[in-house]
Amino acid sequence: MALVVQKYGGSSVADASCIKRVAQRIVATKKAGNDVVVIVSAMGDTTDELLDLAKQVSPLPPGRELDMLLTSGERISMALLAMAIANLGHEARSFTGSQAGVITDSTHGRARIIDVTPGRIQEALDLGQIAIVAGFQGVSQDTKDITTLGRGGSDTTAVAVAAALEADVCEIYTDVDGIFTADPRIVPTARQIPRLSFEETLEMAACGAKILHLRCVEYARKYRLPIHVRSSFSTKEGTWVFTDPKTEGTEMEQPIISGVAHDRSEAKITVVGVPDKIGEAAAIFNTLADAEINIDMIVQNVSAAATGRTDISFTLPTNDAQTALTALKKIQSKVVFDSLLFDDRIGKVSLIGAGMRSHPGVTAKFFGALADAGVNIEMISTSEIRISVVVDEDDVDAAVNAAHRAFDLDADEVEAVVYGGTGR
Amino acid sequence: MALVVQKYGGSSVADASCIKRVAQRIVATKKAGNDVVVIVSAMGDTTDELLDLAKQVSPLPPGRELDMLLTSGERISMALLAMAIANLGHEARSFTGSQAGVITDSTHGRARIIDVTPGRIQEALDLGQIAIVAGFQGVSQDTKDITTLGRGGSDTTAVAVAAALEADVCEIYTDVDGIFTADPRIVPTARQIPRLSFEETLEMAACGAKILHLRCVEYARKYRLPIHVRSSFSTKEGTWVFTDPKTEGTEMEQPIISGVAHDRSEAKITVVGVPDKIGEAAAIFNTLADAEINIDMIVQNVSAAATGRTDISFTLPTNDAQTALTALKKIQSKVVFDSLLFDDRIGKVSLIGAGMRSHPGVTAKFFGALADAGVNIEMISTSEIRISVVVDEDDVDAAVNAAHRAFDLDADEVEAVVYGGTGR
Repeated sequence: MALVVQKYGGSSVADASCIKRVAQRIVATKKAGNDVVVIVSAMGDTTDELLDLAKQVSPLPPGRELDMLLTSGERISMALLAMAIANLGHEARSFTGSQAGVITDSTHGRARIIDVTPGRIQEALDLGQIAIVAGFQGVSQDTKDITTLGRGGSDTTAVAVAAALEADVCEIYTDVDGIFTADPRIVPTARQIPRLSFEETLEMAACGAKILHLRCVEYARKYRLPIHVRSSFSTKEGTWVFTDPKTEGTEMEQPIISGVAHDRSEAKITVVGVPDKIGEAAAIFNTLADAEINIDMIVQNVSAAATGRTDISFTLPTNDAQTALTALKKIQSKVVFDSLLFDDRIGKVSLIGAGMRSHPGVTAKFFGALADAGVNIEMISTSEIRISVVVDEDDVDAAVNAAHRAFDLDADEVEAVVYGGTGR
Repeated sequence: MALVVQKYGGSSVADASCIKRVAQRIVATKKAGNDVVVIVSAMGDTTDELLDLAKQVSPLPPGRELDMLLTSGERISMALLAMAIANLGHEARSFTGSQAGVITDSTHGRARIIDVTPGRIQEALDLGQIAIVAGFQGVSQDTKDITTLGRGGSDTTAVAVAAALEADVCEIYTDVDGIFTADPRIVPTARQIPRLSFEETLEMAACGAKILHLRCVEYARKYRLPIHVRSSFSTKEGTWVFTDPKTEGTEMEQPIISGVAHDRSEAKITVVGVPDKIGEAAAIFNTLADAEINIDMIVQNVSAAATGRTDISFTLPTNDAQTALTALKKIQSKVVFDSLLFDDRIGKVSLIGAGMRSHPGVTAKFFGALADAGVNIEMISTSEIRISVVVDEDDVDAAVNAAHRAFDLDADEVEAVVYGGTGR
């Protein structure tokens, strides 16, 4: 008998008939002889509707109260799901994040899980019951207030609860068949990937692939917990994410490149005419760090000998650009740069694959394919298993397709037409 | 500085603008120098909408999960109310029933409050904050599961929390100006009653007046906690319910009759031809008690000498009639009665007033007024401060008006046109 943790996103429980369908799938897993724990998100657009209500009442609601409000969403979906399971003749118990022992810090809106003490879940399992747990929420260790985990929170709940219970697998149900080699809306011939290492999945999540959230994958890697990303609309095998099969030597051969990710959510800021002296770049990035802005890629031009000045460009989430520009303006008298340029019409395209560790020439082939497609590269950054480039926003589709083709990722036929997120 | 507990029903927080208006009233109370604790119901029709969702998923949802579902309603309203108060520059903290220390038994759907341990509320008050508490809900002492208190639950929460905090007053806000001498929809000249004793209010609640729930008044009487029933749409004084001013001698003169209540929710069952022997009536009412049916009034005819048989009539909530008839059919072979009659076209009209203790002749005057109005009396029951009669459903309006007029309760002009419930 295995212990299976399943996570269903908002689109999987969007209405009563969806909930009944999910209940059948859960009961089938139970009947197959497994212990089952289910993590569930709020129904469909519930969270957006609650946020809209909050906005009607207050332009800047206190984080504690906003979390209290939003957590009512999972309360509704988990109770309904437990009812639907009871209707099929199986006992189910729903638990809030607090009841399930999801202990977090006190950062409302984006709390981090400190510990999971799943005593009540275990009790329910021992009684032969199916445990339903509210995703996305927890309780603060210090203040005992209700918290939410922020974007991708339910996935993180699922992996954290699965790790605490030492589950055999954490199944993440979504509205597509798994993780794809590229976004099928851009590359119609993108293929579903059967298996991925934690490292590759982390890079994909960090590079804009929306299927799994970064924190969830980090958590799973830490506890070596296998994740199975699959569709709640079919019974097909999805994508397995587990310990790197290449480094473990469990697989004979793997493709060099696993997939191509892209991200249009970043912007580029260029600080023009920075004095090429020790400490100037540090002053700039200290300022940004103090403003709690996450920088992604950084490029510094070769200094112009005549002026002794250089340009520094960096990318960051577009949402943070206003704050960054304001913070930099404030230090202009100190750092004495010439001006600030802002460009949000950029896109990042990333090639990801653990195989590139042992295959030189991947970079050359990638850049060659981009050149052939007429795509100009603005910035470059690399890790051991990833190459990312920043290009003009209009060139993103062409770049993704060129890379996908160059590394033989195309399927023989179109596999999927939808590619969505997993909700919260 | 006083400690004021305020309770707002669902119609007072039906939408964002209602919530903002209520927030202003709360802040005004705080600014006047009071500590304020607010009990809030779910917004408008939320509870009905959640029940409808449940019905779509399961015809007979488990009580535990139904309670989990329904309690999301107050979670939404209390968080929004706290946000609206924060927006006005005052600190507010919302607490679920569980967080507020509302400890109940484990009877889902109609749990009874066992204890209130308002540590977190007191902490918030000590910090100068306004505490917002979810009405209608608690946490079970034994199972730690979330419970709901059933009809009138938020009023009961308000009184229980107020008693635990030793509040100076519990204000129950509703959509009318207070408790009236009769339902203004039936008696347009009904007057708002300035003050009532607990005993009179209890009798009114038990006799169908919908303004305060029986359990709430029982709780308030037990702790001698003054209740102020008033409108959330005006600042007028409402109806004060407190220790009987007549027995306490604080008032020089009181009207003999405080009000006329009516109730159309009961039905009458007659057991025809019961053997007039010791133990037969006991067998009938034991059977009904075993079926958990609350009997209201009972009448036994004089036995017919020729047959040695009698008829026994009783009233009960119409909703329970089916169960009662089925239970009685089952004992027909034992008790050997002739037949069962069922009549749901009845109404109960009750005259309530602590003054009738010291004023003989009230009954005669009441019955005389009914006779003059052409109303036939089917059953009679009395307490020390109440006379109730069962009449034909079609005669209820005439009976209420006749009694109201006979005891000089009419106002000079029409005071109110609406008369509604207080929500849950």
